[in-house]
Amino acid sequence: MTQIQAARAGTVTQQMRSVAQTEGLDVGAVLGAVAAGVLVIPANPGHPGVTPTGIGAGCSVKVNANLGTSSVKPDIEAETRKLRAALRAGADTVMDLSTGDPESIRTVRGICLRERLPVGTVPIYEAAVRARLERGSVVGMTADDMFRVIEDQAREGVDFMTVHCGVTLATLDRMRREGREADVVSRGGAFTIAWMLHHDRDNPLFDQFDRLLEIARQHDVTLSLGDGFRPGCLADATDRAQVEELILLGELVDRARSAGVQVMVEGPGHVPLSQIEMNVTLQKRLCHGAPFYVLGPLVTDIAPGYDHIAGAIGGAVAAMAGADFLCYVTPAEHLGLPGEKDVYEGVIAARIAGHAAELARSARTCAGTFGELADKARARAWERDLAMARARKSLDWKRQFELAIDPEMAGRKRAEMNPSGVTECTMCGDYCAMKIVAEALGSDRAQKC
Amino acid sequence: MTQIQAARAGTVTQQMRSVAQTEGLDVGAVLGAVAAGVLVIPANPGHPGVTPTGIGAGCSVKVNANLGTSSVKPDIEAETRKLRAALRAGADTVMDLSTGDPESIRTVRGICLRERLPVGTVPIYEAAVRARLERGSVVGMTADDMFRVIEDQAREGVDFMTVHCGVTLATLDRMRREGREADVVSRGGAFTIAWMLHHDRDNPLFDQFDRLLEIARQHDVTLSLGDGFRPGCLADATDRAQVEELILLGELVDRARSAGVQVMVEGPGHVPLSQIEMNVTLQKRLCHGAPFYVLGPLVTDIAPGYDHIAGAIGGAVAAMAGADFLCYVTPAEHLGLPGEKDVYEGVIAARIAGHAAELARSARTCAGTFGELADKARARAWERDLAMARARKSLDWKRQFELAIDPEMAGRKRAEMNPSGVTECTMCGDYCAMKIVAEALGSDRAQKC
Repeated sequence: MTQIQAARAGTVTQQMRSVAQTEGLDVGAVLGAVAAGVLVIPANPGHPGVTPTGIGAGCSVKVNANLGTSSVKPDIEAETRKLRAALRAGADTVMDLSTGDPESIRTVRGICLRERLPVGTVPIYEAAVRARLERGSVVGMTADDMFRVIEDQAREGVDFMTVHCGVTLATLDRMRREGREADVVSRGGAFTIAWMLHHDRDNPLFDQFDRLLEIARQHDVTLSLGDGFRPGCLADATDRAQVEELILLGELVDRARSAGVQVMVEGPGHVPLSQIEMNVTLQKRLCHGAPFYVLGPLVTDIAPGYDHIAGAIGGAVAAMAGADFLCYVTPAEHLGLPGEKDVYEGVIAARIAGHAAELARSARTCAGTFGELADKARARAWERDLAMARARKSLDWKRQFELAIDPEMAGRKRAEMNPSGVTECTMCGDYCAMKIVAEALGSDRAQKC
Repeated sequence: MTQIQAARAGTVTQQMRSVAQTEGLDVGAVLGAVAAGVLVIPANPGHPGVTPTGIGAGCSVKVNANLGTSSVKPDIEAETRKLRAALRAGADTVMDLSTGDPESIRTVRGICLRERLPVGTVPIYEAAVRARLERGSVVGMTADDMFRVIEDQAREGVDFMTVHCGVTLATLDRMRREGREADVVSRGGAFTIAWMLHHDRDNPLFDQFDRLLEIARQHDVTLSLGDGFRPGCLADATDRAQVEELILLGELVDRARSAGVQVMVEGPGHVPLSQIEMNVTLQKRLCHGAPFYVLGPLVTDIAPGYDHIAGAIGGAVAAMAGADFLCYVTPAEHLGLPGEKDVYEGVIAARIAGHAAELARSARTCAGTFGELADKARARAWERDLAMARARKSLDWKRQFELAIDPEMAGRKRAEMNPSGVTECTMCGDYCAMKIVAEALGSDRAQKC
């Protein structure tokens, strides 16, 4: 039984219990949310020891790090180092997007699956690489080839898979009539379009969606419905191609849920700040509350080298509006395959965005440390910031480092910048506002400083 | 005559003409906005060659970089390097916040004033340092000491000054009754509170506000009304102390405008993402449209080492809501005095935030590259992103670097990550979506790839 099937049967699984514990939720609430399909737990029984990770209603915002070799650089060692960096930085999941040779793809996936984080893939990447090798070109693949890779990966234990089922001849027509600036920037979308036009046939992952559902149900693979028509620049955001695909993905959400398959939906991409909240609201409505997995979004096109910052801005606003799962963006985006440092910085930036959103999520009209107790994720987020405020007030540096999103970085940077033995920091030195006011107000805290 | 006096007299100054040119606005619009006090041009006639820089209605979002020695590190060489870094990174203004010895304070200020950017200061810092030296303690300063420093700095050519006129015995009472977590984190606010409590007298910069206005008018110094009660942690955001001070600052805006003095207002600080738009709307209303200069805002307390990212998230949302001027936050915030690299990264992050906001500002309901032509800042921001989208589509790397927020970084990173001669990037390599789709769609662009 998949998690959603179990939930509907009223069976509390070990995974639901674990998510309830981690998120500070009642088990009954988790069961209800999983049954309704507004919370997914990607945990393939074939992935031993995988940490049950809740994505969706009631859960903290999760962060994914993309890894994987490229055809130019099939360097397994480098990918292993990047995986370690993602783990150190606190990623909740990793996706292996390898497009090196088939051997290296399988090796990197195996390395990822030895970890306890949920592992995602985009199976059409491996299918494309194999087709190019075995049949001379990406478009040489058959529908059976696609499903064979999906089944193999499901059997190996992959927990969630991006499938571009919404890229169809019909949605492609919409895109052509729209007249886009950047057309298609999704690789899976691009493969699918090339395949459809070459064969003059519709996308097998759409045409034979039930076949896909059958595999996903058997292995409890969570489907992540990919957005092949996601905008590749701000000017293309929220256009008719993107929204048409989203409508179709919404229908596929219904079918997946009916078939007892866990499902989430992927979203943009490049989106002006003013359209992000609307995009999230639209997805939640059209996809009947399915968890939303956003790629960024990037709020400007002109920040290569700093796209983790552009993505953190967009991700924070998206998650505040209700997005559940942030795919990181690294400083290498639009320039090349990320290295270890890029991966680390990308994860941290996305985690800052997710945390900032959690603090704001249910406090939209009200404020402060009070609010509905039901919203446990927000309450926990606030606890941490409040503890940090108090540690700052009392100039307790050790506690500040413990509470920092990256304790190692905070500790190292302070050590570099401040002579040892100084209580204040070199920013204000003797003119520390905290100290001056505490003394002036004659509060108890003055003693401690 | 100050800019606002000239505008009211219907006189178009050289500065207004220059701002109109830079911002792509009609001179008449600039004149009207300056007369109304919704646009300031900090340009002290005593600062030769200063670039007229519009802050407020109709203008692009501006970015300030803070520099300055601290009592722990009065290193003039280091500050000079930081100034260069701020210039390279594209800061619009710099503030010299030196609190080293009086000699180094004066030297650093002189170095800043040799540049063409508008220069800001917080005069009470120098007054505090002098008082400690000459009178044994910060609180030893007299009201005349404060005004003497302000007048000296105005005469030297400082273009805008932060003055904490809203920190009064009455607003302090509000703060005490509120019960804050972090009390006061503004250094200027802290000095003022210590002074008021020591002398049992109200803040001279409030009590003798007309005297301050007289100096500002004489030298056309733009007053930046500081927020001494800005929240120092998320839990204190938008509390009664902060809002009470803002009301008072609004009244002082009226008085400054009446006296022919240019004035803007400073804002938080640490603010949950969900309260930022409200903070901007409230400031605009209470301060009758005065330009809003925000310090961040930081959307979480737990990101030391990465506060430039937390600040970019907050700054983008604030500027989208109407904030006009972003004070950068560096990765060193909450840890120590920033170094050269911190300054550079801080400016870039704030510029990304400002640009993302410009793209979104007037496109809140609508979208894309269309919109009111009147909003020139937005139109220009969109032009740049659109050009980047097209350069990406045609894999024109040279043009991508030109359009990047940091051309040097983008070029260097691509060179590092990609073997020379490769047209695509190492992220997708042979599986470049742009190339595949262009070929599949058989468009003209396929030829170019």
